[in-house]
Amino acid sequence: MTASRLVIIGGSDAGISAALRARELDPAVDVTVLVADAYPNFSICGLPYLLGGDVPDWRSLAHRGMEELRAAGMELLLEHTACAIQPDSKSVVMTDATGREAELVYDRLIIATGATPVLPPIEGLHLPAVRVLHTMQDAFSVREMIEDRGAESVLVVGAGYVGLEMVEAFVSRGLDVTVVEQFDEILPTVDPELGGLLRTEITNHGVDVVTGARVESIEQKGRALVVRGTSGLERTVDLVLVVVGVKPDTDLAFGAGAKLGIKGAIEVDRRMRTSLPDVFAAGDCAETYHRILHGPTYLPLGTTAHKQGRVAGENAVGGGKAFEGSLGTQVVKVFELAAARTGFRDAEAEAAGFDPLTVRTRAFDHKAYYPNAHELDIRITGDRMTGRLLGVQIVGHREGQVAKRIDIPAIALAVKATVERLSTFDLSYTPPFGSPWDAVQVAAQDWTRKRDASLVGA
Amino acid sequence: MTASRLVIIGGSDAGISAALRARELDPAVDVTVLVADAYPNFSICGLPYLLGGDVPDWRSLAHRGMEELRAAGMELLLEHTACAIQPDSKSVVMTDATGREAELVYDRLIIATGATPVLPPIEGLHLPAVRVLHTMQDAFSVREMIEDRGAESVLVVGAGYVGLEMVEAFVSRGLDVTVVEQFDEILPTVDPELGGLLRTEITNHGVDVVTGARVESIEQKGRALVVRGTSGLERTVDLVLVVVGVKPDTDLAFGAGAKLGIKGAIEVDRRMRTSLPDVFAAGDCAETYHRILHGPTYLPLGTTAHKQGRVAGENAVGGGKAFEGSLGTQVVKVFELAAARTGFRDAEAEAAGFDPLTVRTRAFDHKAYYPNAHELDIRITGDRMTGRLLGVQIVGHREGQVAKRIDIPAIALAVKATVERLSTFDLSYTPPFGSPWDAVQVAAQDWTRKRDASLVGA
Repeated sequence: MTASRLVIIGGSDAGISAALRARELDPAVDVTVLVADAYPNFSICGLPYLLGGDVPDWRSLAHRGMEELRAAGMELLLEHTACAIQPDSKSVVMTDATGREAELVYDRLIIATGATPVLPPIEGLHLPAVRVLHTMQDAFSVREMIEDRGAESVLVVGAGYVGLEMVEAFVSRGLDVTVVEQFDEILPTVDPELGGLLRTEITNHGVDVVTGARVESIEQKGRALVVRGTSGLERTVDLVLVVVGVKPDTDLAFGAGAKLGIKGAIEVDRRMRTSLPDVFAAGDCAETYHRILHGPTYLPLGTTAHKQGRVAGENAVGGGKAFEGSLGTQVVKVFELAAARTGFRDAEAEAAGFDPLTVRTRAFDHKAYYPNAHELDIRITGDRMTGRLLGVQIVGHREGQVAKRIDIPAIALAVKATVERLSTFDLSYTPPFGSPWDAVQVAAQDWTRKRDASLVGA
Repeated sequence: MTASRLVIIGGSDAGISAALRARELDPAVDVTVLVADAYPNFSICGLPYLLGGDVPDWRSLAHRGMEELRAAGMELLLEHTACAIQPDSKSVVMTDATGREAELVYDRLIIATGATPVLPPIEGLHLPAVRVLHTMQDAFSVREMIEDRGAESVLVVGAGYVGLEMVEAFVSRGLDVTVVEQFDEILPTVDPELGGLLRTEITNHGVDVVTGARVESIEQKGRALVVRGTSGLERTVDLVLVVVGVKPDTDLAFGAGAKLGIKGAIEVDRRMRTSLPDVFAAGDCAETYHRILHGPTYLPLGTTAHKQGRVAGENAVGGGKAFEGSLGTQVVKVFELAAARTGFRDAEAEAAGFDPLTVRTRAFDHKAYYPNAHELDIRITGDRMTGRLLGVQIVGHREGQVAKRIDIPAIALAVKATVERLSTFDLSYTPPFGSPWDAVQVAAQDWTRKRDASLVGA
């Protein structure tokens, strides 16, 4: 019997996770990973830190080196582009760096093609000093703009996670930075009250923040770019970075006849199976099962890509694992602050049929008497009638353990806990690191009080 | 109808939590709290930081001020000592600071008398320069020894949580510090491999560490104390601090006929009811329900005291809440390190009837390419056959979010998760604060691999 052949298209988080898991469970499986560029298993989330100077050497962004990946038993075809999937002959048509075409036969296929940057309808996006940030090559281009072409000012379109990370990176590099967000507040994935705290933080670092404005055109004027938009927006800068989100890269899958689902992502079941036989998908190209919705959504996050890849890899070698689902748990560092969320905010909860109540609480990250205590801003969203926890958002000092503190409600959400149940968990405490009731528990008790009061009033 | 009278003996964590919760739920209840000293609701866990100088003013150790407590509607009788509980007449006999006796009638009573320091069988414990650390007054005495009597060297008996915190405090004060632990490694509440990391840390700070030795005698010699013990131990110091743990303070309860349970703590059910009618107990004087054991244990911790007090307060005004239970989750800061645990270690798991396997993993607190990444030492204990998670221990840098990271398995334990399930939780990630798989998830995957290998080998 020949060993079964697993082909994986994509060498980023989902693809490599899948390859590693498949090889771990079945050392006889033949795993080939097609990597479009020369950078398999690189931490794309690390690009802002490379550009900001925190990471001096781009090579250190690799989650694992080539040797480690090869030692795990996978074959990596670098700079190989998959051109077509042929489900009937169970093969993938690909070209190598020289353009030579070849076919690769699979028994099982995992599509992990990731996402591509969304390009908003702005005139002048083709100009050479207008950049996106999604690949290692993009990062090198941006770095070249600063280091070799001497860009001294930049306008960042989009104040989401990556936008804010890049704002910080550019400030670290000494550039004059403007950021433009079409919504009324920055980081629109959290409530505006929290986004406002981040706005203060970046404004204090000298950043020119423009919200409620849409960039409409970019025009070359000598060596500079003139950026114009709604609400009278006009700025002249050396560089424009467009980071307004991503969309699933599904050309291959669609071309092969795979069904697409929510937001155009590849439709998958919880076993990460597509509609094509023996073809799985994972990561930013695919839908993700949402733990509260009990249905598909699109949440392109590295954590999810790793988990989905692991499930796809397991199932591609005969496993029967179900992906447990996402909650959109995420965190971002913005200068001295950290902002995190998990689960639903008010509007999302309402859309899902809940009767949400969101309560804001401020509580210290550790006992106030111990040096360097910082107040955290916590927003808990729960269902008014059932008391079920639906989501939490936290903004606080970067040393306030915000990232691991959001994990408390993230797990509580996974087990469908009520807000009140948060207070029953036996969490750790010592004055330098916490409080006898953790800040999240203080907020939970606050939510319950306000909920009770709102019911009495109703 | 007269308002019901709730009397609470004890003004520390459990007593005040109970009073606050009772008043919150029933604004008509008459709450009187007997406080033995003049320091209600003080953070006893903060004493080492007061003595080390991190907390300049002792007043700031109050969780809440007198005004706040009184505004919540409780009457505080300071420097009032409860002498006897009379269950038949439902009254408490007490004396005030002047020795005047009085009786206080209750409808419901909560005993929250806390614990008292264990005094090991050492000759010379009565000497004036031999101290314990359990009350504000104790802290003032120790401070006086240093500031007014010029103690320059100290020997700490016991290298548990408080012992290590005091070692750090004394080093901060510039004292020569020796610590003596009768077990073979310091912090014997974690595995010796982790205790060894802490030993290196305190040794690097100039502390003289003696393990596997028992102090037998302390002798006054001029202004100094000569401390002698097994294994040839002999040290001459100015001050000795004995911190080898606590035992439940149950004299009152026992005198009134309440049943005592495990380790002599007041027997309580999950509603915090003692064997006496209308008498509840909470905090360090009482047993605690263990979430894995499904039975009582004794774990005197501030977090537990707060939770039990809250339940007792709720039930004392007619509620029917069950205490959800403890896992012994705890964390301690030791210079630049943090050490945390939750749930069982090997021997405890075995005693509870499990077939435990403990696996050690080292994983970074955040992406290694981002500055100041530190490796965490993680030990996961799980049941070999069922894969059930039983406990986790972590030692790592104090900036490694160890305190909130141990909360991940603490919640997983509360929901009886398997080790494998840890990997399915949607935890937060950004390179400065974490990894796509959190360190705890990396350790969980490692555990599963080693478990599988051990089953194949079996």
